[in-house]
Amino acid sequence: MSSDAAQRLAFVQSHLQVAACANKEEPKKKTPQESMSEEREKATFDVRELTYFLDGGEKFTKIREKFMMELERDPTFRMYDMYDVTKDQIRERTMEKFRTIVHYVSAEPLPIFTMRMQTISLIDPGFWTRFGVHYGLFFGALRGSATSSQFSHWVSKGALALNGMVGCFAMTELGHGSNVAGLETTATFDEASDQFIIHTPTITATKWWIGGAAHTATHTVVFAQLIVRGKRYGTKSFIVQLRDTRTYVLMPGINIGDIGKKMGRDGIDNGWIQFTNVRIPRTNMLMKHTKVSRAGEVKEPPMAQLTYGALIQGRVAMVVDSGNIAKKAVTIAGRYAAVRRQFQSSPHDVQETKLIDYAIHQYRLMPLLAQAYAFHFTGVETQKLYDNLMDKLESTKPGDASMQDTLDTLKETHATSAGLKAFCTWSTLNAIEACRQTLGGHGYSAYTGLATTYNDFAVHCTWEGDNTILTLQSGRYLVSCYREALAGKTQPEGVSYLNHLDTLLNLGCGAKTNDDILNFDIIQEAWGVVTANVVKKAGDDFDASLKAGMSPEAAYEECSQARLAAAKIHSFGYIFRRFAQAVKAAPEGLRAILTKVCFLYGLYSIEQNAGFFLQYRYFTPSQMDFVRSQVNVFCREVRQEYIPLIDAFNYSDYMINSPLGVYDGNVYEKYFDQVKRQNPVGGEHPYLPLIQSLLRRDIEDDEPLEDDEEDEE
Amino acid sequence: MSSDAAQRLAFVQSHLQVAACANKEEPKKKTPQESMSEEREKATFDVRELTYFLDGGEKFTKIREKFMMELERDPTFRMYDMYDVTKDQIRERTMEKFRTIVHYVSAEPLPIFTMRMQTISLIDPGFWTRFGVHYGLFFGALRGSATSSQFSHWVSKGALALNGMVGCFAMTELGHGSNVAGLETTATFDEASDQFIIHTPTITATKWWIGGAAHTATHTVVFAQLIVRGKRYGTKSFIVQLRDTRTYVLMPGINIGDIGKKMGRDGIDNGWIQFTNVRIPRTNMLMKHTKVSRAGEVKEPPMAQLTYGALIQGRVAMVVDSGNIAKKAVTIAGRYAAVRRQFQSSPHDVQETKLIDYAIHQYRLMPLLAQAYAFHFTGVETQKLYDNLMDKLESTKPGDASMQDTLDTLKETHATSAGLKAFCTWSTLNAIEACRQTLGGHGYSAYTGLATTYNDFAVHCTWEGDNTILTLQSGRYLVSCYREALAGKTQPEGVSYLNHLDTLLNLGCGAKTNDDILNFDIIQEAWGVVTANVVKKAGDDFDASLKAGMSPEAAYEECSQARLAAAKIHSFGYIFRRFAQAVKAAPEGLRAILTKVCFLYGLYSIEQNAGFFLQYRYFTPSQMDFVRSQVNVFCREVRQEYIPLIDAFNYSDYMINSPLGVYDGNVYEKYFDQVKRQNPVGGEHPYLPLIQSLLRRDIEDDEPLEDDEEDEE
Repeated sequence: MSSDAAQRLAFVQSHLQVAACANKEEPKKKTPQESMSEEREKATFDVRELTYFLDGGEKFTKIREKFMMELERDPTFRMYDMYDVTKDQIRERTMEKFRTIVHYVSAEPLPIFTMRMQTISLIDPGFWTRFGVHYGLFFGALRGSATSSQFSHWVSKGALALNGMVGCFAMTELGHGSNVAGLETTATFDEASDQFIIHTPTITATKWWIGGAAHTATHTVVFAQLIVRGKRYGTKSFIVQLRDTRTYVLMPGINIGDIGKKMGRDGIDNGWIQFTNVRIPRTNMLMKHTKVSRAGEVKEPPMAQLTYGALIQGRVAMVVDSGNIAKKAVTIAGRYAAVRRQFQSSPHDVQETKLIDYAIHQYRLMPLLAQAYAFHFTGVETQKLYDNLMDKLESTKPGDASMQDTLDTLKETHATSAGLKAFCTWSTLNAIEACRQTLGGHGYSAYTGLATTYNDFAVHCTWEGDNTILTLQSGRYLVSCYREALAGKTQPEGVSYLNHLDTLLNLGCGAKTNDDILNFDIIQEAWGVVTANVVKKAGDDFDASLKAGMSPEAAYEECSQARLAAAKIHSFGYIFRRFAQAVKAAPEGLRAILTKVCFLYGLYSIEQNAGFFLQYRYFTPSQMDFVRSQVNVFCREVRQEYIPLIDAFNYSDYMINSPLGVYDGNVYEKYFDQVKRQNPVGGEHPYLPLIQSLLRRDIEDDEPLEDDEEDEE
Repeated sequence: MSSDAAQRLAFVQSHLQVAACANKEEPKKKTPQESMSEEREKATFDVRELTYFLDGGEKFTKIREKFMMELERDPTFRMYDMYDVTKDQIRERTMEKFRTIVHYVSAEPLPIFTMRMQTISLIDPGFWTRFGVHYGLFFGALRGSATSSQFSHWVSKGALALNGMVGCFAMTELGHGSNVAGLETTATFDEASDQFIIHTPTITATKWWIGGAAHTATHTVVFAQLIVRGKRYGTKSFIVQLRDTRTYVLMPGINIGDIGKKMGRDGIDNGWIQFTNVRIPRTNMLMKHTKVSRAGEVKEPPMAQLTYGALIQGRVAMVVDSGNIAKKAVTIAGRYAAVRRQFQSSPHDVQETKLIDYAIHQYRLMPLLAQAYAFHFTGVETQKLYDNLMDKLESTKPGDASMQDTLDTLKETHATSAGLKAFCTWSTLNAIEACRQTLGGHGYSAYTGLATTYNDFAVHCTWEGDNTILTLQSGRYLVSCYREALAGKTQPEGVSYLNHLDTLLNLGCGAKTNDDILNFDIIQEAWGVVTANVVKKAGDDFDASLKAGMSPEAAYEECSQARLAAAKIHSFGYIFRRFAQAVKAAPEGLRAILTKVCFLYGLYSIEQNAGFFLQYRYFTPSQMDFVRSQVNVFCREVRQEYIPLIDAFNYSDYMINSPLGVYDGNVYEKYFDQVKRQNPVGGEHPYLPLIQSLLRRDIEDDEPLEDDEEDEE
């Protein structure tokens, strides 16, 4: 062998040695998929049975699975690129989806179609809203406020089939949101022409946030101040055509613009609208309730409250959505925690420890899993409450003996749904963010899904009744129930704890030993006692202000913070009751696991509100220490079967749309694949000349010319 | 007059009447600007003096104002369209900005340049980070880990001037974040060639999230496992060239891709990097600490801890950033609340009521204003703590008598900054969202700024030390201090309450009457007593586990939740102390107002943690009721001058970049203008054929053909 060849051989051998050294055999580690599989083996219950129970029966599970498959195979509902589409692209795609979905509106019974839409809301909340603008708001306004001949007229124009027209709903104004009575847009009756003149008198009266207005709606329902012969009759609704239905050119007097970029839900083309002396036929006012005759006579409805029912529907939908989205967030965070490993618990371990095996990670995630279950069952019950209310409203006519009962139900459902909407959406928003943070750095990637979920969900806290205002309404209801209860009037189921005020307010803790606390009845009693006290505090504050000479309005204002606290504790107690009730009704094979989850939820929410439970001395500090320690114990218990509990939510990978939440646990490959698919390697540099010119600067430019010494001589 | 003419006249008259009716004179209402001005008249202190105090003196205020003006007039820092730019556009713009800013790196002293960058961080946190990747991380690694000749070498290559090269920092891997010791990338020494071979052995070893890697970095510092002669020496850092510095073509063995879309900070071109047997000279290993000789001898440093100092810098920067961003969020929400009106408090009111005049709105915003002040002063003090540590580290050499003191300071500063980083970033993130929600629906618009602020800020909770892990480290430090204190060792200032454990744990509440509570010393004592108890609880839990036979590691793991609670209460007590201290040091004319703000902060944070104050019986339930009521009282007090308190932050409209937070209060016009500028009216419809074809469907397609009856015959 020549010396040259020997050298080359030595070089090659040295390389191979290095390679061998770097690749030396290591002890066998579990793959992410294996890490996931072992979690599934821990189930002590039938996952499928739990899915059926959650869905309300096997039949509904099958329907949901049918919907998931149909969506996944529908090209307009492709999701893989949704985290990268621009605002314009997603809006266009939103309109494409209408075509498929419109088909089902008339073909499917409403409860089934509602399930379809709930499924869609999970993957594309922007489309869900955009669709809801036409069918829920515009068409809902027709159903709720049009006379039957008006209703038929607009259906014949295509309002139901979405053929020939598409509607939007112009309530909010730039300067007016929550206070609908304070809207500035006017609808002035012009007797001579038998027309209304719709007009935007100021910049703050500009209709704002109107979903669908920017580019797609041909018609709108406008909320405007009815003015007849100079007299104002309050806010009523009117149909106004915005655009030619063929050319899409704006109608005379209509000025419309795009609201532009939002925090989320960019699929909705929200717009602003200004009306400048726009004339519409008198019969375009929706006259089911208030009527204006040809002669300008105004007839107002006998029972305005009955029209409030419509407001509640959106809130109930958001309670249901809270449960669904909470389940999705927990699925992503939970599955990732089963395969992600970080730090070795002991130097002898072959592999790093799963995140979920850390006590603190269990404490971060297990209560959120329990809460998702709690919100799920609360959603189911709230929907029933609403359906029951709607039945009563439809079957009760003014003058009926049952009218008072119907009004009471309306009041209770309104207050309950208001508080639940606020606290379920707030808690779920926090849960999404908490789940996102459990993903560590990867939670900041758009592709892992929870950033978008947060941005899409956040709007629930401020729309269809701003959460803070809703909690105050709920608190106001509680104060008034408290006062009625003091006066001896029996209170309905939702606030039935007020019927035993004397007992509750003087009740010591029912738990004699620490272990007694681990009992649904004791936890329920704890919530009852503390809620009674917190509501009493708000009521007493209110009373004190009245006695100090304030008006009721001023007295309510004065006890705002106490009302907020009352609504909060009331709502969380209510949620626990609903959960405990559902567990009691569960099939036997599921009761053991659901009982653990329910205990975790109950104890955790007591811990989160410890100040109130100690304040009103239901628990002693040492009992509270026990509660805290049991939260840890139940976190550990629930952790044992948490993947089966998540699997029971039964969301397909397509629905989850996050590589970190995939069923098989193969998170790293799928994440890497997604990043590469959306950002292919190679190709042209997006700004090469810019970076080249930065890196090759002629920096001598900065150096000053030296003084010319000769001149100074 | 002809009948035709008469008819036309009647028609015109009817129109004019209607117009007159709609425009009839209304009582004079205050404009938004007037609503804002009247707030400024309420100041009882000199706003400018407060600004000077916050900035550390008039000189620094002037410098900040100079920076704000320079930024506003720099075309590459134009902000008006920042809420609409795409990921690609914002990345390009980020690189354009380098050119201006690079100029100042060498021209300005570091503390002044740091102020410039802090100013920039407020309006363009993505650029701030991208710049920090080169100067803070890449160049910082050279400063901290290169020998002096290595340092000179890379400076001569252009590392300081950013001329000829630009760096990134490849630490995190797809499968490894917090556990740096567990990184998989290898750096194997090849003695034959005197080279290291940098290699990515698995998919999870792919470097991930590397800021600047996707498109702009030419070089990187890589963290990799040092392997010499088959033996592993742990994670060290190495310089690797990624791209040709002229053509930008990737070097052999380098594979790079774009990480793509993120929750925020899209101006950073984060990338992933895979190394496949990439050879670098041995001298590319940074050898200030560990050294590898030509012969393959590895010399490890005597005091590895001293290298931790660098980690703390980023955390301190985030505590400071928390204060700054909290001030920005409160400015937007606060100014809007002074001009936004909703609902009339009384039917006789000419105008609706300002949001800020509602008790609940004060309760939502005033504590956040107080917290922004608290975080500001905490940031100032934390920076001092850090500077003091750096002085000590630089002046102490191994073997010095002062070494133990330096190490103690390092330990304390590490733990304190870890806890503060976690709780200040968490609280600020929550505050941004809470402020966003106080804007009602408008908070969901991208143009009002807080959605983007949230998305940009959120990353602080998980990077440079995941918050949860940091709190556990802080809690671990507290447990160890507690054990040392029990053993009689005097503890440093930050945990000095542990030096009086016996007294504190047996101390009753120092307040004899409710009014006694309104005293900084009592509030401070309350925090001290409760912190001592919570730390003791964690320490006792730890001890109990040890006694049950667990290893110290397992015992720490077992008391995780107690450690988290200890770190939380310790940190909030620490923040209150810093705030109270700053108030005592304030100029006389400011002390009255700052005292109110500080009381609000102290009482509110007690209320938020009421469970602990009741648990350890520092306050009785009735005292806690008093605390709650005083939170309302101080909300009302601070509300009186809250606009001057916000003005003192002295952020220009350009810096705030939200039409709802403008100084003059003219929110509606500026908001409307911004929406119209970014989304001009008119122009082409973005998807006209799509919507036309949807609205003119041939729906008969759905109808089935009737059976042909003849065939059946």
